[in-house]
Amino acid sequence: MDMEGKKASESFVIMNELVLPNDTNVFGNLMGGRLMYWMDIAAGISASRHCNAPCMTASVDNLSFKNPIKLGNVVHIEAQVTRAFNTSMEIHIKVWGEDSLHQYRYESNEAYFTFVALDPNRKPRPVPAVIPENEAEQRLYEGALRRRQLRLILGGKMKPEDADELKALFV
Amino acid sequence: MDMEGKKASESFVIMNELVLPNDTNVFGNLMGGRLMYWMDIAAGISASRHCNAPCMTASVDNLSFKNPIKLGNVVHIEAQVTRAFNTSMEIHIKVWGEDSLHQYRYESNEAYFTFVALDPNRKPRPVPAVIPENEAEQRLYEGALRRRQLRLILGGKMKPEDADELKALFV
Amino acid sequence: MDMEGKKASESFVIMNELVLPNDTNVFGNLMGGRLMYWMDIAAGISASRHCNAPCMTASVDNLSFKNPIKLGNVVHIEAQVTRAFNTSMEIHIKVWGEDSLHQYRYESNEAYFTFVALDPNRKPRPVPAVIPENEAEQRLYEGALRRRQLRLILGGKMKPEDADELKALFV
Amino acid sequence: MDMEGKKASESFVIMNELVLPNDTNVFGNLMGGRLMYWMDIAAGISASRHCNAPCMTASVDNLSFKNPIKLGNVVHIEAQVTRAFNTSMEIHIKVWGEDSLHQYRYESNEAYFTFVALDPNRKPRPVPAVIPENEAEQRLYEGALRRRQLRLILGGKMKPEDADELKALFV
Amino acid sequence: MDMEGKKASESFVIMNELVLPNDTNVFGNLMGGRLMYWMDIAAGISASRHCNAPCMTASVDNLSFKNPIKLGNVVHIEAQVTRAFNTSMEIHIKVWGEDSLHQYRYESNEAYFTFVALDPNRKPRPVPAVIPENEAEQRLYEGALRRRQLRLILGGKMKPEDADELKALFV
Amino acid sequence: MDMEGKKASESFVIMNELVLPNDTNVFGNLMGGRLMYWMDIAAGISASRHCNAPCMTASVDNLSFKNPIKLGNVVHIEAQVTRAFNTSMEIHIKVWGEDSLHQYRYESNEAYFTFVALDPNRKPRPVPAVIPENEAEQRLYEGALRRRQLRLILGGKMKPEDADELKALFV
Repeated sequence: MDMEGKKASESFVIMNELVLPNDTNVFGNLMGGRLMYWMDIAAGISASRHCNAPCMTASVDNLSFKNPIKLGNVVHIEAQVTRAFNTSMEIHIKVWGEDSLHQYRYESNEAYFTFVALDPNRKPRPVPAVIPENEAEQRLYEGALRRRQLRLILGGKMKPEDADELKALFV
Repeated sequence: MDMEGKKASESFVIMNELVLPNDTNVFGNLMGGRLMYWMDIAAGISASRHCNAPCMTASVDNLSFKNPIKLGNVVHIEAQVTRAFNTSMEIHIKVWGEDSLHQYRYESNEAYFTFVALDPNRKPRPVPAVIPENEAEQRLYEGALRRRQLRLILGGKMKPEDADELKALFV
Repeated sequence: MDMEGKKASESFVIMNELVLPNDTNVFGNLMGGRLMYWMDIAAGISASRHCNAPCMTASVDNLSFKNPIKLGNVVHIEAQVTRAFNTSMEIHIKVWGEDSLHQYRYESNEAYFTFVALDPNRKPRPVPAVIPENEAEQRLYEGALRRRQLRLILGGKMKPEDADELKALFV
Repeated sequence: MDMEGKKASESFVIMNELVLPNDTNVFGNLMGGRLMYWMDIAAGISASRHCNAPCMTASVDNLSFKNPIKLGNVVHIEAQVTRAFNTSMEIHIKVWGEDSLHQYRYESNEAYFTFVALDPNRKPRPVPAVIPENEAEQRLYEGALRRRQLRLILGGKMKPEDADELKALFV
Repeated sequence: MDMEGKKASESFVIMNELVLPNDTNVFGNLMGGRLMYWMDIAAGISASRHCNAPCMTASVDNLSFKNPIKLGNVVHIEAQVTRAFNTSMEIHIKVWGEDSLHQYRYESNEAYFTFVALDPNRKPRPVPAVIPENEAEQRLYEGALRRRQLRLILGGKMKPEDADELKALFV
Repeated sequence: MDMEGKKASESFVIMNELVLPNDTNVFGNLMGGRLMYWMDIAAGISASRHCNAPCMTASVDNLSFKNPIKLGNVVHIEAQVTRAFNTSMEIHIKVWGEDSLHQYRYESNEAYFTFVALDPNRKPRPVPAVIPENEAEQRLYEGALRRRQLRLILGGKMKPEDADELKALFV
């Protein structure tokens, strides 16, 4: 494994899924839980591509569902690792709905998942650093630190006053 | 519909699910996405019980997975509405794994989902207020305001400096 | 394992499931087979909780479906061990449909499943006795003997004339 | 619809299903609930073939599972209508496991399901009589009356002392 | 294993599946992929019955879907091994849709799958010859050679000019 | 709809799926039928993107499975329309397995599906022409004619001697 670091783009994953009847609620819209299921799969594939090891979901950041995706439409998911933190990786996920008949795409949501890499004894193991190569990747890379502090605070593992990156926002 | 308010406990929902092979990763542990799928169903049932209307997932707060739940174990989920905000409800969810053979239960995670109630035209509709009846419900009821501000900030719909409830934490 | 006996209530299990499109027939009603699948899972969880061992379905008593459960409604299942017979347990199951929109619950069915506890070599193993604690549990405990005789007769393992408990009914 | 009666054999249905990982318990054996799901589908197809109308499961008679069916084995199900009772039909189901590698078939269970035929308004509708054509079908046809009385008694719809067909067994 | 050859009819398999909501497209018709999934299962069961070994899909010949099968209808599949080629077997599959309400059956498609038998080390292993017993089986047996040449050509493993059986067709 | 023609690349679709336990046979390899199910979904999404109408699988060309894809590996599918024929489209599909742990990708198969576009009355409707833009697309575009003739011959809709494109191969 190349511990020198791997390009962010090497972990880029695209998934397209068709919304079938069992994925929908009484309004014929994709259920949130079913979408999170797919997002988790996409994030896991992306994380494994980055670290070449089996991975496990550690956390999911706040996510909000913008537009419902309809029965028969396509769910388009893109996932890419933004940054690594020793044994964990943050994965950025974007989701669109796609209505081929009316030829338009609509935003559904955007989220950050964190995965942990495991060794064969199921213990966390180090992962390569992430090398951002363009401005968008750079921005995601930098924001990862701030999001991580928020995660630690919300998980009760960091005190708000120690979250230097975050504090700026609220003062 | 009783717009005067409904007791929090009326929306209490218990789900027990068996972890089957297809729910697991290569380590034989429940996949995060599959768990979120079940949590979303439980939260949706709880929300519908509170407002007696079809509901749709609006957002999911930060959640972190503590202990992996193993193949053949039982996932125990409890969901209850904590507070209503005009047309939306916050639902508190707690998840344990249960290993009957070794007779122990272990914490898996704890989360907050937000659901929106819909009228027959798929437009948001008002929901009854939530009446907390004991200390635990009261605490969840009060915290709901702070969590909502965080959700609005993270969703770009509120400026951090306007989040009075939250600001205290960081200053 | 406590072979002295365990309280009936310790094996109490609640399951709530949402009826999705693939669970329904052409009338949009829950298919009987799908409901039996869930009942079997609930009964199995209850049995395992009682005996702290993996369990296998041995038999299902006569069951009749009263009211169809509709698409989008919730299936509410309660299961509890009624009595143990050496290596097997009888589990009592009650099922309701729940229509949150119209705020009513309707009976669906009531059934008795029998499960066998297995040791690691897949051989039947003894299970703790069941201790009924209230009148309802006592009634279920006593009836278990009669139902067992009927099961044995229907399974060709007991002659009707030896079924003392049952005979009274028909003479 | 031919109300004069239809041959029993016209409703004969064969199903073969492969036991996949998600159908099995921790011992790698087919779960009872999954088998009942398939039996219900087979019975429903058989019932619809007999009455040419959509059908709904009304009841399932006592059934006991003899030999566990293993992962990777084939479930072989045969279903055939035995007798009609105004708006309902009794279906006889036999299930074998089949292990192709070791070239043997083993009995799994045998059961009786009752289905009701529905008209487009979801009301029970008359079904054709069943015409048994050989000794086995004749025996099933005759036994159907006795089983029906047991069903009615167990369902609380008939008093044991009125069950002439059954009483003989216990006296 | 009887390497002397086995009767074609010993591998005959019937499957009946109900078309459920999740199997259908926006028109309520069975999706082609779902049908191929079932055909593959049926073909695999038939192949395993012939060679008494685990089998793996090697190839699928051209198949065309004639009539769409509707939601709620039954898919009737018949599979039988036509001929063996050292370590592989060709399986002939016929599919009908069945509409019980209107009492008619309609052709859906007809296909040839090829499966390879595997030994415990996952290496191809010899399979018994197929003994055709009637005219239809004989015709399928003979055609198998021609279809095999086409498969080899299309798979780039045989030059068209060496395909004696096939060439006749085009000259 | 732009009947002037659409670029082939506009219909390009990527799908990534994780191989879960229920997708595999006793050797832990992806079952052929499950893969065809996913290929059909990918092809259908690609076809709909090209013609902006609901589509139905019409036929699948000969396909052979090269390397088994293992449990826990990723299935990578790429689909793109190659050419349109009045109301139908040929879609080219390529499938790889991807083993993140060992960092290699392996070919699984390559196939051609044909889909028909349907109008709201479920009748075939015209689709835009396909505009190939590079050499690979051009080659697929040209080969489509030959593959179509083979399809028509194998489907009994064209006489071999009229298949000018194909005949050359065999003489």
